[in-house]
Amino acid sequence: MNESLLGALRRAVGESHVLTGDDCAPFLTDWRKVATGRAVAVVRPATTEQVRDVVRACVEHGAPIVPQGGNTGQVAGATPDQSGRAVVIQLGRMNRIRSIDTDNNTLVAEAGCVLQAVQEAARAAGRLFPLSLGAEGTCMIGGNLATNAGGTQVLRYGNARELTLGLEVVTAEGEVWNGLRALRKDNTGYDLRDLYIGSEGTLGIITAAALKLFPLPAGQRTAFAATASIEQAVALLARARSVLGAELTGFELMSSVALELVPRHFPDQRLPLPTAPWFVLLESSDAESELRARDRFDVLLSAALEAGEIDDAAIAESVAQSQAFWHLRESITLAVAAEGRCAKHDISIPTSRMADFVTTTDRVLQEQFPGVRSATFGHLGDGNLHYNILQPVRQQEAAFAAVQQNLSLLVHDRVRDHGGSISAEQGIGGLRTADLQRYEDPVKIALLRRIKQALDPRGLMNPGKVLPHQSVE
Amino acid sequence: MNESLLGALRRAVGESHVLTGDDCAPFLTDWRKVATGRAVAVVRPATTEQVRDVVRACVEHGAPIVPQGGNTGQVAGATPDQSGRAVVIQLGRMNRIRSIDTDNNTLVAEAGCVLQAVQEAARAAGRLFPLSLGAEGTCMIGGNLATNAGGTQVLRYGNARELTLGLEVVTAEGEVWNGLRALRKDNTGYDLRDLYIGSEGTLGIITAAALKLFPLPAGQRTAFAATASIEQAVALLARARSVLGAELTGFELMSSVALELVPRHFPDQRLPLPTAPWFVLLESSDAESELRARDRFDVLLSAALEAGEIDDAAIAESVAQSQAFWHLRESITLAVAAEGRCAKHDISIPTSRMADFVTTTDRVLQEQFPGVRSATFGHLGDGNLHYNILQPVRQQEAAFAAVQQNLSLLVHDRVRDHGGSISAEQGIGGLRTADLQRYEDPVKIALLRRIKQALDPRGLMNPGKVLPHQSVE
Repeated sequence: MNESLLGALRRAVGESHVLTGDDCAPFLTDWRKVATGRAVAVVRPATTEQVRDVVRACVEHGAPIVPQGGNTGQVAGATPDQSGRAVVIQLGRMNRIRSIDTDNNTLVAEAGCVLQAVQEAARAAGRLFPLSLGAEGTCMIGGNLATNAGGTQVLRYGNARELTLGLEVVTAEGEVWNGLRALRKDNTGYDLRDLYIGSEGTLGIITAAALKLFPLPAGQRTAFAATASIEQAVALLARARSVLGAELTGFELMSSVALELVPRHFPDQRLPLPTAPWFVLLESSDAESELRARDRFDVLLSAALEAGEIDDAAIAESVAQSQAFWHLRESITLAVAAEGRCAKHDISIPTSRMADFVTTTDRVLQEQFPGVRSATFGHLGDGNLHYNILQPVRQQEAAFAAVQQNLSLLVHDRVRDHGGSISAEQGIGGLRTADLQRYEDPVKIALLRRIKQALDPRGLMNPGKVLPHQSVE
Repeated sequence: MNESLLGALRRAVGESHVLTGDDCAPFLTDWRKVATGRAVAVVRPATTEQVRDVVRACVEHGAPIVPQGGNTGQVAGATPDQSGRAVVIQLGRMNRIRSIDTDNNTLVAEAGCVLQAVQEAARAAGRLFPLSLGAEGTCMIGGNLATNAGGTQVLRYGNARELTLGLEVVTAEGEVWNGLRALRKDNTGYDLRDLYIGSEGTLGIITAAALKLFPLPAGQRTAFAATASIEQAVALLARARSVLGAELTGFELMSSVALELVPRHFPDQRLPLPTAPWFVLLESSDAESELRARDRFDVLLSAALEAGEIDDAAIAESVAQSQAFWHLRESITLAVAAEGRCAKHDISIPTSRMADFVTTTDRVLQEQFPGVRSATFGHLGDGNLHYNILQPVRQQEAAFAAVQQNLSLLVHDRVRDHGGSISAEQGIGGLRTADLQRYEDPVKIALLRRIKQALDPRGLMNPGKVLPHQSVE
């Protein structure tokens, strides 16, 4: 059986692009190393037609299909299960920028383009592709779309979903849907595009996308600010929106615990300000000029200082310094990983209720799990925080592991009570399927199942992700 | 049978809100008067629970369901068919603004809120709800979402889809999905929200929505400009994007034929400029000040005059004058209707190919249908034009009607060849189902059918809209 499948896969993509045995290892464990699976093979197609042929071969042999991009996801959404029956389709060879249209402000990229390569292609054409996140040097645009990635520019430009005009998709049955239209408006039937975006490879495989481009800003300013409380940070956000309008392109919050892990684990990095309870990384991008960016930023920061919303601020005086500020922020994820065991929660809450959520949840956690450390950081401008709870200093990892599930239940229950989401930007993958079942409306879950059944009737597309495995009815 | 159904409907919403016989007439013909249907009853529920109960009654009796808002659609999407078996659910009594959260910049409105009432509620709270279109005094937000309405502010703020965070929906089987989350980020499973938005009442009934609010602009400027060609208008668009960035909030194109119909049929309105081949209505909205809006607008118009992109311009010097400019633009639809028979095409094309499309299609139409008049206008900033072709002066209506289908095929074939869409913002409804079948990828059509089957397995939700009636399998 496997031999017949392997033969078909080799005919589809060529012998050297069908990996088996130990060659598969790099593709069978997620980057956080929380899940390891097995596979018949890892296949690396180079064209849409090859993806189609691989899917058809899998369908014919009843083999589960696991699409994979840069393998940088947070929720093990691209890792096969333990059955050993799956075929991993790794899209890294589909890495062409097919076209750039600067008059229409669009670009067509294949799924295996590294995000940074898409950004660079846009920049080389004098345009901005604004999707930006820590993993941008490794993650691939196909994975960004499959997970509806967020990142640091969402408050101005939206998620991956809002940056996409059209898709090319190989369906679960091995057909090619050519929906690569580069149009701002297209109301011809149900919104297939947004259904595949964020479906985490469980409905089909995105092979290419028509993406929106924007003008490069004429001037940018970046500041690191210290603030006494999350209430003040939320007030600063409202002020920044009001003063900067659409020029506000970054608003990141960091707890002192989270930020101070960075110089501890990466001693070449240093903090631009003395310690404070919270820090905010602010960025503005002005369409008119560097001078105006400077002026408006100064107006904002002076008023915020006067109002007590911030206590101190460091403004980047060079591109290098601005990059250093962002590098601090982007290094938190790795610093947290280096520090020890961490209960991670990728939550969103209406901005109006965020301060109450963080303040009261921090307090309840201290009461019930004394000594835990709130390494919270994230995209306050989008109402999205990585509400990460680190094990107490000197506690055994096993002791923290024993309470971690209860701790997360407490956090997620409170998120629900605050009208929030338990997966703001990272998706469900293989890790959060139980959370989805627990926290989402049963009517919604039933609708998701119907969609899965409709678009993947054989249940071969990334099974067990988003929705738990289900016995065949 | 009908008596049993009517009894159930009366129990659901109360006797006085079940209209029958002649009382139904206003709801059985679309506003363009291109379609008239029949119905068992028109039901006017006041709450989500009543909508649910009405849907359940219809499901029990096998009665088709036609949701209707303000009945202002362009494609007869809310008109029942001739069978006389349908129940029209008119949502006008669900007209509460449920909540406004100015800190989170969100508002929850019921489906039957007139769009203008939503705009006014936002404004009363010091915020902008930017969806804006000619029918805003009559159309309802539920219909705007069901059709993913566009309008005049899309180039800055997006379609109805981009303005929506969460939905409440009564499903085709009479369940209530409460997805009214007011979150910027929520990656918990497939994107049900965007599936119901734009589904034209064929998958379920949107009963309420959580909508995005924006800051009110500090200053606005409006200008009417004359331009020699569509090439120059496209060049002006690129310049306006570059100079104004996110402050460009309106960019409407009008052919002289289209615009000059307005004073002909509405003599109280007059044009602000002498005649020219094309006119552009430009609007900027500045976050900082009236003064800056004025400065940047002057920079733009001076440079455009110098570059020959425009030949003349009138800048509104008061709010009243700005409203008069917009009123001219908004009156074109009614003026075209008053002028005679018109072949309407709601198309989008990549901006980079728009000039070529219009110039060559205008020429080919003159060759094949001498004397037709191109009353083209629309949202050039979105690549969306209402490419409307009026009958020749003094031709008999019947003579034009005889060639109208061939003319539209020619137009739509060329739209397809230019990478465009045959329904940019108005949807498919009952009028464009054959076009959808003709111009869309069969793979896409098959996927749409699967989604319809999955979410409306009985086929009772607005049957025959979007997808043509299908014999039961």
